[in-house]
Amino acid sequence: MRNWLRVGKQSQFRVCSLSFRDYLQYAYIYYLDISVQSFECEQYCSSVSRMMTNTSFYIWYFLSLGLGLACVVCVCLWNSQWRGGFAWDGSSRQFNWHPVLMVTGMLVLYGNGAVLYRVPLNWGANKRPRKLLHAALMLIAVILSVIGLCAVFGNHNASKIPNLYSLHSWIGITTAALFATQWAAGMAVFLFPWCPGSLRKLLKPQHVWMGGGLMTLCIAACISGINEKLFFVLKGNTNGSQPYSQLPTEALLGNSLGVLIVAFGLVVLKILSTHEWQWPESQPADLTYTPLLDEENT
Amino acid sequence: MRNWLRVGKQSQFRVCSLSFRDYLQYAYIYYLDISVQSFECEQYCSSVSRMMTNTSFYIWYFLSLGLGLACVVCVCLWNSQWRGGFAWDGSSRQFNWHPVLMVTGMLVLYGNGAVLYRVPLNWGANKRPRKLLHAALMLIAVILSVIGLCAVFGNHNASKIPNLYSLHSWIGITTAALFATQWAAGMAVFLFPWCPGSLRKLLKPQHVWMGGGLMTLCIAACISGINEKLFFVLKGNTNGSQPYSQLPTEALLGNSLGVLIVAFGLVVLKILSTHEWQWPESQPADLTYTPLLDEENT
Repeated sequence: MRNWLRVGKQSQFRVCSLSFRDYLQYAYIYYLDISVQSFECEQYCSSVSRMMTNTSFYIWYFLSLGLGLACVVCVCLWNSQWRGGFAWDGSSRQFNWHPVLMVTGMLVLYGNGAVLYRVPLNWGANKRPRKLLHAALMLIAVILSVIGLCAVFGNHNASKIPNLYSLHSWIGITTAALFATQWAAGMAVFLFPWCPGSLRKLLKPQHVWMGGGLMTLCIAACISGINEKLFFVLKGNTNGSQPYSQLPTEALLGNSLGVLIVAFGLVVLKILSTHEWQWPESQPADLTYTPLLDEENT
Repeated sequence: MRNWLRVGKQSQFRVCSLSFRDYLQYAYIYYLDISVQSFECEQYCSSVSRMMTNTSFYIWYFLSLGLGLACVVCVCLWNSQWRGGFAWDGSSRQFNWHPVLMVTGMLVLYGNGAVLYRVPLNWGANKRPRKLLHAALMLIAVILSVIGLCAVFGNHNASKIPNLYSLHSWIGITTAALFATQWAAGMAVFLFPWCPGSLRKLLKPQHVWMGGGLMTLCIAACISGINEKLFFVLKGNTNGSQPYSQLPTEALLGNSLGVLIVAFGLVVLKILSTHEWQWPESQPADLTYTPLLDEENT
């Protein structure tokens, strides 16, 4: 409107030499030209901004991959080298599967499955392959968590240790139950085609929030579990081994695992909570965004 | 432009009877009329949407207040009734200040100070009073946390127990240090007038993210601390008291405190992460938003 008015003012001086149709055409061409220039400029700015957003995303993403790998290496090293390795015979070597599988499944695989939805590859393209990969990673994480829980229940039952009394176990079992519920609800609502788009749109923010909440719960469960385990095993009264309070190598390794877990969790939460890294359809007005079918967008 | 073109087409049939000035005026009035109708409709929709947003916010907000209060009552009850009350003499009664002050200060006051920034009172008005209240609540939380740390260091030193060896202590001291840093940086950047608006805009997302991250760290520190304390004190081998594994009343109270802490933390994180509840200037295009001075907006 403003561009047209400017043309109008200029044209007042020579309107006598122009037919009304000429005038309309001139104004319209002028308007289109300004629009194209403005659009091209915004397109350029948008692509530069997207490139910078992508770069900062990948820095955090590779940090999360590195920290996740470090967590898995650390928990495997601790349980294989300091806790006697692995078995499935009800002994403490069966218990050792518990921290390894919970950290690998419910923390690292889960976190990677969550941030996968922020990787800016094929933005605007069909979401289905990414959805399937997200669901598959989460399914593997659920399965590993269930096996990890079976490991500890089996060890407790064989050793006549009561189950589910500590705060760690309360938080842990709640996290696992919510995780399985989140996966099943996610499958039913977002993967299968029978769910209406309106319900998907309504439940998507809850699914995302619950995802972040589960990561927080998982961090709390892991930290309390490692802390409890180190107090249990580092008594320092047999075979001349040092107690936890003197920080022997195993204590340093366990504490470092805890620090890595917290760092990994915070990086994942950072990625999940950064609005610019969400899928474009949930961002404010985006010129490069092409609407897709409702079914694919939610 | 589209409205004007439509007017233009209608006017082609009677352009002979209208002067160019009349035509301009007619087109402009038509454009203004459409704009006002559209603006009024959007204003109405916006106010209904804002009212619903406010209602859902207040449900979560009062939930956070209720859960926070329940956490404080629960931790006070536990330490006063089951752990022998409070003193400042290096004994375990001095230690009892530690959970009470950390839960009250670093968790509940901190969480309330954080979500205070989302309460939709006086949206668009001067931010300074709210900033001051936010900073004051956080300062009280920092002071309570420091006293809470002094309580445990004093008790450990008097009882010749080494400091800062457990994973709980590593996570806890990191949380407290980051919390104090966050407060000092927040003061320097957002409260004092010398910081340029551009730096404030750059640091605001980091401040908000760090705020959420600190809540996650705080939950992990609290859960591991309560878990550790219950294992320490509920041995079940003196005076016929029951061990932790048999879930005596104190264990149930301690575990319930942990569950309340997690619930409070998740509600606070939900409030912090919900984009619709953020201050209007960080939302997508909002018709009711009136820009303020840069200094007040960041």
